[in-house]
Amino acid sequence: LELGELDTPVATVDLDAVERNIARMQDYCDEHGLAFRPHVKTHKLPAIAHMQLAAGAVGITCQKLGEAEVMQAAGIRDILLSFPLVGPAKAERLAALAGEAELSVAADSAAVANGLSEALARAGVEVGFLVELDGVFERSGVQSPEEAAELAELVDGLPGLRFDGLMTYPTTEETGPQVRAAIDAVRARGLEVRRVSSGGTPTFFTNHEVPEITEVRAGTYVYGDRTCIANGTVPFDDCALRIRATVVSRPTADRAILDCGSKTLTNDAVEDPAGGDGHGLIVEYPDARLHTLHEEHGFVDLSACAERPEICDVVTIVPNHACAVTNLHDEVAVHRGGRVVGFWPVAARGKLR
Amino acid sequence: LELGELDTPVATVDLDAVERNIARMQDYCDEHGLAFRPHVKTHKLPAIAHMQLAAGAVGITCQKLGEAEVMQAAGIRDILLSFPLVGPAKAERLAALAGEAELSVAADSAAVANGLSEALARAGVEVGFLVELDGVFERSGVQSPEEAAELAELVDGLPGLRFDGLMTYPTTEETGPQVRAAIDAVRARGLEVRRVSSGGTPTFFTNHEVPEITEVRAGTYVYGDRTCIANGTVPFDDCALRIRATVVSRPTADRAILDCGSKTLTNDAVEDPAGGDGHGLIVEYPDARLHTLHEEHGFVDLSACAERPEICDVVTIVPNHACAVTNLHDEVAVHRGGRVVGFWPVAARGKLR
Repeated sequence: LELGELDTPVATVDLDAVERNIARMQDYCDEHGLAFRPHVKTHKLPAIAHMQLAAGAVGITCQKLGEAEVMQAAGIRDILLSFPLVGPAKAERLAALAGEAELSVAADSAAVANGLSEALARAGVEVGFLVELDGVFERSGVQSPEEAAELAELVDGLPGLRFDGLMTYPTTEETGPQVRAAIDAVRARGLEVRRVSSGGTPTFFTNHEVPEITEVRAGTYVYGDRTCIANGTVPFDDCALRIRATVVSRPTADRAILDCGSKTLTNDAVEDPAGGDGHGLIVEYPDARLHTLHEEHGFVDLSACAERPEICDVVTIVPNHACAVTNLHDEVAVHRGGRVVGFWPVAARGKLR
Repeated sequence: LELGELDTPVATVDLDAVERNIARMQDYCDEHGLAFRPHVKTHKLPAIAHMQLAAGAVGITCQKLGEAEVMQAAGIRDILLSFPLVGPAKAERLAALAGEAELSVAADSAAVANGLSEALARAGVEVGFLVELDGVFERSGVQSPEEAAELAELVDGLPGLRFDGLMTYPTTEETGPQVRAAIDAVRARGLEVRRVSSGGTPTFFTNHEVPEITEVRAGTYVYGDRTCIANGTVPFDDCALRIRATVVSRPTADRAILDCGSKTLTNDAVEDPAGGDGHGLIVEYPDARLHTLHEEHGFVDLSACAERPEICDVVTIVPNHACAVTNLHDEVAVHRGGRVVGFWPVAARGKLR
């Protein structure tokens, strides 16, 4: 079966490109003595997680407990849950999972630490804890070295939790000073910081500049997208996730309508100003502008194109944001050189809790 | 089970509100002698489609063949496929489905009509055909009365297809003149226009102003969202689809982080300038601004709020765009007055083809 025989719209994954992307990031980490812990939020596929581990990753990162449950069920043992787990239902599930896998969690509050500790202690299991430091996005995370130290000290005294170190995101010029100040404050309370986890695809290759970082997380690099092309982390040829779509209408000379809208591509913009506007790069018609998406319609302006697609033609799209796109697809058609080698269910898709 | 006992994030549907929304639109159609053909793209749930039919709808509208297959499998017989079906795989599936249900399709080209005709004729089935007229969105649809008449004439001569009439979207001030001109051109070729399908939630209550319209389609009205509140078609109390989310971090006095990001709410904006900015209305804290979404993080600015939520508190969100949100959720928690009466799988979710 060749890609050209697939009905559209369809999400396709180039396994050769995935392997190149995995090798590029793993090589960097190996060269700099960094542990690599890929984030599965991008692919949500057990098979690719296993490829990442086989290449040398120390474990994986999950954003949702439901993702971790899928990955553990697929035989993966070392999992960091990087999103704060709140409430008794999730604490119970974490405790159950901790009996089957080596888990760590990150959070920024006593409330979350206390809630997890209770359930974990009752189950007689232990989970590593990373204190989250806020980064340039001003998202979650403690706001000062003192807050970090205070939470570390609390966690150190809580049954079921083991203070392991610090987590932040993404790695920027501020990360080094911030991490060093937090380490100093934690050490001043007599605690050891064994692990400092940072990451993000856009600044991936700067992690070695902060010697305190021990572990790097990244997700998007494995597929690449227009944002990755723009920030230079994944070249166009290695953008592994692409959407094949059909021209279903050519109402005017300058307009084509594709069978991929926001329910196939999302409305996410390219996150880098150099990445261009619109909703995706049309590989065969780089001068075409996919300027508007309705739920199922993709609006293409062809006015700048010398060659133009006909109705019923199929085109290939590199999406703006791979992680969001994969989340819309129940399965991906996996191929090597255009030959389909499988249809993989996106097993951790839709695991919102 | 009460809503307050559900883990988050979770999509909830208020059945009483759904019934009020269905009644409001059906009453309008009954009053004006219009056939109502709700679009299932919003809920993707067989149970709600059956509620719409029980209230008086003549059939349903689907955007995707996969949605139609799910609905037919749930016992629904009269289905309009409003999106152009291209390619032999879809033509074969349409032909198979046409043996089990009463189908109609819409398209704007000879290429699509010819492709469908071949497969339908081979299977010995007949499907109604509506010629799509382009509307204010400049999307798909023929561009002139002459083009409409030409395609109608072609379809009239094709085996497996039966020319039924015209389809457009949405109903606006231009719809009346445009539809009348197309009807005149089609009639000039000796063909009868038995059916004129128009619609859209925002301008729903104007359809009677175009006497040529025989049938109205609308989807979003059944759930409502911030766009519907802004355009006045669904009041706040009748916004049936809501997301319950937990405050997982309170890093600063003015900031809360929720466990709902773009993978729970989408990045879709409110489509009406009066609808406000941000990514959703937080019911309990109307002065809070859900200003940014990452994939799993919702960033809330509390600076304008007198009362502020604590970490672990649960809030309720009316989303910007209901149709896009439901597409992210494998199931919805259905309730009446806060008492959960079921968890319904979003059966037609992810049916992209």
